[in-house]
This record gives sequence, C-alpha cells and structure tokens, in this order.
Amino acid sequence: MNCVYVNSPFFAGMERNAFIWHSAEYHGVMDNITVIGIRGLPIIHEGDDIASLICKKQALRDGDILSIASTIYSKSKGYTKPLASITPGERAHRLAKLNGEDPRFVQAVLDASADIIMEHPFILSELAFGHIGVRAGVDQSNIEDGMVIFLPPDPMNAADSFRADIKNISGKDIGVIITDTCGRSFRRGQTGNAIGWSGMTAIRDFRGDVDLFGHVLKITEEAVVDEIAGFANFVMGESNNGVPAVVFRNCPRWSGHDSLYFSKTEDITRNLLKKEVA
Amino acid sequence: MNCVYVNSPFFAGMERNAFIWHSAEYHGVMDNITVIGIRGLPIIHEGDDIASLICKKQALRDGDILSIASTIYSKSKGYTKPLASITPGERAHRLAKLNGEDPRFVQAVLDASADIIMEHPFILSELAFGHIGVRAGVDQSNIEDGMVIFLPPDPMNAADSFRADIKNISGKDIGVIITDTCGRSFRRGQTGNAIGWSGMTAIRDFRGDVDLFGHVLKITEEAVVDEIAGFANFVMGESNNGVPAVVFRNCPRWSGHDSLYFSKTEDITRNLLKKEVA
Repeated sequence: MNCVYVNSPFFAGMERNAFIWHSAEYHGVMDNITVIGIRGLPIIHEGDDIASLICKKQALRDGDILSIASTIYSKSKGYTKPLASITPGERAHRLAKLNGEDPRFVQAVLDASADIIMEHPFILSELAFGHIGVRAGVDQSNIEDGMVIFLPPDPMNAADSFRADIKNISGKDIGVIITDTCGRSFRRGQTGNAIGWSGMTAIRDFRGDVDLFGHVLKITEEAVVDEIAGFANFVMGESNNGVPAVVFRNCPRWSGHDSLYFSKTEDITRNLLKKEVA
Repeated sequence: MNCVYVNSPFFAGMERNAFIWHSAEYHGVMDNITVIGIRGLPIIHEGDDIASLICKKQALRDGDILSIASTIYSKSKGYTKPLASITPGERAHRLAKLNGEDPRFVQAVLDASADIIMEHPFILSELAFGHIGVRAGVDQSNIEDGMVIFLPPDPMNAADSFRADIKNISGKDIGVIITDTCGRSFRRGQTGNAIGWSGMTAIRDFRGDVDLFGHVLKITEEAVVDEIAGFANFVMGESNNGVPAVVFRNCPRWSGHDSLYFSKTEDITRNLLKKEVA
C-alpha cells in the first residue's frame, strides 16, 4: 500500500495532509507540491544537531521529503580535516603537478577514494559506497580557510540516522535525501545528485506498467532520488545563498529499488575511463 | 536587474505575484515554490494546439516556468512516422541484428542522428542541436502501435515559439522547458533533461561569487534547466500517468549562459566512446 496526500478542491476545508490509502496500481490523485527552502540556519560546526536546528526553523509533516546538502551533514559530524594535517604521498605530488592543485588536497581526494577512474584533467574516483564523483566529492567551499570537507563515508546510514533524529524530535515520519553536486558526461554544468536516502527507494520501477496505448514499457527505471536532489540543489543554490535544506511536501509516492549504482561490468563509461588509466 | 516573486508573511494579503525588483547582487527573498502537474489533457495528435489546451486546464502567471514533455510537442507538430514507411539500409540491418531491435526503428534512429557515438549495446548519438542521447531520443511509447516519435529537430526554436503561443493566448510571460528522459554514466535509471528552453538561461553562472566564508567559488556553473527538467519528469511520471506538463511557480531567478553542451574537444566521455567506434 502506498499513500498520497490530498490537496484538491474536493477536499477543501479538510486537513491538507489527510491520507488516502491506495494500492500501487492506483495512479489517481496528484496535487500541487510545495517546495520550501529553509533559510536562516547558522553556519554548521562539528557537534551541531542539524535535525534540531531544522525542526526549529520549519515545521515538518508526515510524508515530507527533506533534502540536505552533504556539506552540512559532514561538518556536523566532523568529516573535515585541516590541509596542514595532511602529508601528501608520491602519487598526490604527481597528480597535483599534473592538475595544478595543492598536493595536500590531492592526498585528501586519494584518501577518500576506493578506486581512481581517471587522473587527468581532474581526478574522478569511486567512493566505497558506490558513488563516482569528481575529486571524490572533497570540497574546499563553504568551510574555513585551509579545511576540506569529505562526503559522509556511509551516506545511506547517515540518511537513516538523520531520519530517525527528525522522528525523535518532531514525531514526524519523513523521507531524507542527502545531496552532492556533480558534473556529468556530455553536458556542461553541475547538478545535484543523491548520495544517501531513507524512507524511499532510489529508483521508481515501472516494470510491468503499460503506457497510454497499452504497450508494456521498455524504459522502466527512473532515478527519482536524483531528480529530487537536483531540484533541491537548484533551490539551495551555491555560494552564499545559505539554503542547505529543502522540504518537498505532497510528492507522489513510488515504489522500486535501491540499485542506483551500476555494477562495474555494466558501466560502459567507467570501463572505458579505467582502460585509459591502466 | 533580476526579479523574484514574494510570498512571505510580510506580504500576506498582497497579490502573491507582486514583483520586487532587485540587483543580481541581492540574494534576499526566497519563498515556497509550488509545482503543479497538469492532469486531464487529451491524447495529443498532429495539429493540436497544446498551448491552448494547457491554458484551458491551468491558469498561468507571469514568471511561471512551464515544462512540457517533448513527446507531446512532437506529436502536435507531426514529428512522428509509421515504421512501415521506413526502409532500413545496410547499417540499420547490421545494428538491428547486433542490438536485437527492429531494423526500421534503427533506421529512424540513424536518420535522427547527426553523429553516432556508440553502436552497441545501444545506439548513442548526437543530434544536430547538440544533445547526446540513447537511440537519438526516438520513442515508441505513448503513441499508436507501429509509430515512432522523434525529438523536435530544433527544440530551442520550439521552446521560443511555444512560449510566444502561451503569451498570445494568456498574456502571461513565462519560461518554457522542453524535456526528454535520458540515461547517464555511472548511475542506473533515467532522469529528465532539458532539450529546449526559453525565457531563462540553461546554466546558472556563479563566476565571481563568494561562498559563506568569502572564498571565490571554484565550481561556478550549475545546469539549472536540467535540475528543473528532472523534477518535472518526476512529477510527470512515465507510463499511463498522463501528466505531460508541469508548472513551477515562484522559482528563484538566476543569470548565466546557454552553453549547455560540451564542445567535441572538451567532452572526455564522448571522445573515449568515439575512439571505440572508430
């Protein structure tokens, strides 16, 4: 059983978040989604309880999806390091020269990587949890000078525990998406991607569905967590916008699975890039 | 000068879409965004005036962003073909055998392609307008049996003229994004991408911006049209959902540029894939 929120003229005057329970076969009610950028959070430091800070700024409702930037999660958990504490090794020195970067920063990227997929013009690597990203997602923005921020080492677990924190504080059962900004093939510009999620599946799976003309669909998998993370990133902005958390209210529900990352054998781009490095 | 819409407690009782004009330096007001999936549109055929059909279903406001699925635009303009009318050539026969597809469908894909980047396990190609997509975006879903739908041959022009149609019908000055669903490297599942846009730039450009700590940003380009198109695709759903148009109300404004597609020389993935085909 899935559920949708109701916000149609039929239900005017009723509580907006009244539930209608329905089976997965039912594609009925769809109503306006509200997207709320949470402003006014303080700059986050290690030990800060960001779940509490968010709940103080924004009342949440059952069924909301809360998207947070990985940077604030990592800062609150202390997944940061002073560059001065990092001793670059031989490979870091070589790649730093090749790419024109600080060898200590490059060492941080190597330390965060489970597998280097490309060395130049920038390091592209796979993290232990399956995500492939430029410079392993290690960031020098929005943190004090001389510090680097790492992605959470286990973002699925991070999303689960953050979701539990919200439940404990507010009593509300929400979904959580932790985002990072990533480049992509073929198209310029970064977009937000999901690196951790809880309370939903990554992929909406249409297998067995038919289209408007009764054909069984060939394309059956939609990466909805990335589509939501992307829009969250648009609302967050970069730079000094100061909107590290975004609430999505009244989203349609979906069902599917969590196999968001290709396996090594099926990932065509990864294999070609690896061949070049080898 | 940019502008934002105002929907905060300060402005309660005022017209929701009152404008506040401000300079690009001002990152002030950000308020809730409303996302409206337009339901109840009929199945679209050649000659249908989809701008009128949408305006009848949903009142638009100045500053709204309207995202439409490329399929309905293409059907309304007759960018479709019966498979029976297509005579496959030698390459189509070869690739059809290689990939287990209908040779007439493969010929349609080749006809729609300006450059074939990968032949197997599926055709990946570049279209004349710069987009790189699986099977050149040629689609057999949500159309009558034995028919294929092509992407609009000039989707930027399509977005401009669709935007002008909306202005003529409703008097409202909106932004338009035409979407397609696309796979990507490294991550399973399709997401919505923008193939045409009007009334906005594809990329939000942060060059010269500083972060919360005063550092000049290294990462300066965000592909906001794709982030919006992705969320539109989430709201649309696939299959028999019947939501081919989505309105975004009250989005923050941005400035930037339209160079969404990499040039051939700078596109690392494209060059590696091409090397394999050659």
